[in-house]
Amino acid sequence: MVGGGYIGLEVAEALRNLGKRVLLFEMMPHVLPTTFDEDMAKLIHDELIKNGVELHLNEKVVGFRGVNGHVNKVITEKGEYNIDKVVMGVGVKPDVDLAVKAGARLGETGAVWVNEYMETSVPNVYAAGDVAETWSLITGKRMYVALAPPANKMGQVAGANAVKGRFLKFPGVLGTAVTKVFSLYVARTGLTERQAREEGFKPVSTTIKARTTAHYYPGGVQVNIKMIIDESSGRVLGVQVIGPDKIIAGYIDVAAALIGKGATIDDFFFADLSYSPPTAPIWHPLITAARVLSKGKY
Amino acid sequence: MVGGGYIGLEVAEALRNLGKRVLLFEMMPHVLPTTFDEDMAKLIHDELIKNGVELHLNEKVVGFRGVNGHVNKVITEKGEYNIDKVVMGVGVKPDVDLAVKAGARLGETGAVWVNEYMETSVPNVYAAGDVAETWSLITGKRMYVALAPPANKMGQVAGANAVKGRFLKFPGVLGTAVTKVFSLYVARTGLTERQAREEGFKPVSTTIKARTTAHYYPGGVQVNIKMIIDESSGRVLGVQVIGPDKIIAGYIDVAAALIGKGATIDDFFFADLSYSPPTAPIWHPLITAARVLSKGKY
Repeated sequence: MVGGGYIGLEVAEALRNLGKRVLLFEMMPHVLPTTFDEDMAKLIHDELIKNGVELHLNEKVVGFRGVNGHVNKVITEKGEYNIDKVVMGVGVKPDVDLAVKAGARLGETGAVWVNEYMETSVPNVYAAGDVAETWSLITGKRMYVALAPPANKMGQVAGANAVKGRFLKFPGVLGTAVTKVFSLYVARTGLTERQAREEGFKPVSTTIKARTTAHYYPGGVQVNIKMIIDESSGRVLGVQVIGPDKIIAGYIDVAAALIGKGATIDDFFFADLSYSPPTAPIWHPLITAARVLSKGKY
Repeated sequence: MVGGGYIGLEVAEALRNLGKRVLLFEMMPHVLPTTFDEDMAKLIHDELIKNGVELHLNEKVVGFRGVNGHVNKVITEKGEYNIDKVVMGVGVKPDVDLAVKAGARLGETGAVWVNEYMETSVPNVYAAGDVAETWSLITGKRMYVALAPPANKMGQVAGANAVKGRFLKFPGVLGTAVTKVFSLYVARTGLTERQAREEGFKPVSTTIKARTTAHYYPGGVQVNIKMIIDESSGRVLGVQVIGPDKIIAGYIDVAAALIGKGATIDDFFFADLSYSPPTAPIWHPLITAARVLSKGKY
């Protein structure tokens, strides 16, 4: 497997489940390099290794070799490996040919430029989904995010406006995403700590371990939550959650709902989230993370 | 079991799990009468009956009879029933004696009046938790909500302000709650449709069925979601979710997070919630409910 993004991890899992030997090559220092911070990605590395994936990080694939039209070697900067098949999952590129032929302008990300009505630069031509550029709800900056939920909503906006005129506005995205890596669920929304720094914020973060149930309730598991805030404003910029229970998809959705409304750690602390012993600890893990970041305010 | 509130349902389940015959008496037409609408409560009735609870709705208990100090009959308005033990779970009343002795004023709900700093009417006396009154984040009206998460937060606010002066403000509650009834998880936040009408809103609601996973992914189950909005403003007033998967606690938390920030159905529709086949359908069930209520806008 070449590439440690969402698709790379999902394919690696599927192939291991079929009993295949799997080598995973990622040129960056950790998997999910653009969507998770390294400290959280290490939990995924442990899970991959535990499940027999041979992890090759910091190792750029530079070529392949084969005989009779069949590949049998991967060549990296560090060595050569005998293999039978190669799956490449090295990112998504928008297919802009049709839009370019129609005269539509491309944005700074290389995807089709659209405004909040999903109008391209050509009158009466709309673009939506994996072909179109979008923008961050946090920074306002142009982004290219090829994920299904915003694609569907952009399509809805484009369709409604195409029929009714300027009717719906697309507000932007947080890049909220979740996937399953063997027995772990991994989810994220907003900016990573590295991205927050690159965007000029002064990020502060905490990484906590929390249980998914009251401490005495059977069946609870431990999950890891990283929360990143802007130090000066207390605004929550991003959250990453990893743990062996799909309930963490709910955690990331709560975080996305709040971050999308510009929430601070105060808003997280006072969010009236549910509690019952089988479903959550009394202090919801997101609230606990906000408390830690409040430096004793809560 | 006398009383079909959260405690009544939990005790009924525990006793059935011990193999006991259980009669559940509720004077109102449905269980959870103050926190769920009747249409949703009916799903809980089905689950109780399926699990052998003998459900007596619209049936007020008026007395008990016994011999030698041991109860052996429940008397209701409709009849008499032989029983061995009685558990009463008929609401929560704040124990205000100490506060009253200290001269603290009681609020309209009968609990100790406090302001947003958790100060009582007596200088330097604070109250928090099940003894104190709170208020609705939606209507601003005084409420008495004896639930653990707001109790803990009120305690945090009271403690911080007692030490540091007026430092933290408690914003109010939505009455977010979740419990487990046999194999169902039932959760709610905000106003019920009946409460919304009583509060002077013009509520419109929808009740949808949705799956917890992509349609082709194994292990998904069907859940029921009711969403109540104010017709004129589109503001979401309340959500109720019932289904056989604890992931619905996440749904109610997302709803609570958004409603707490005054969200409309537009905010629900555009919330950047996560998607992956094992954890959610592409259109998150809350987004689908918002779409239905948008009457073709989305």
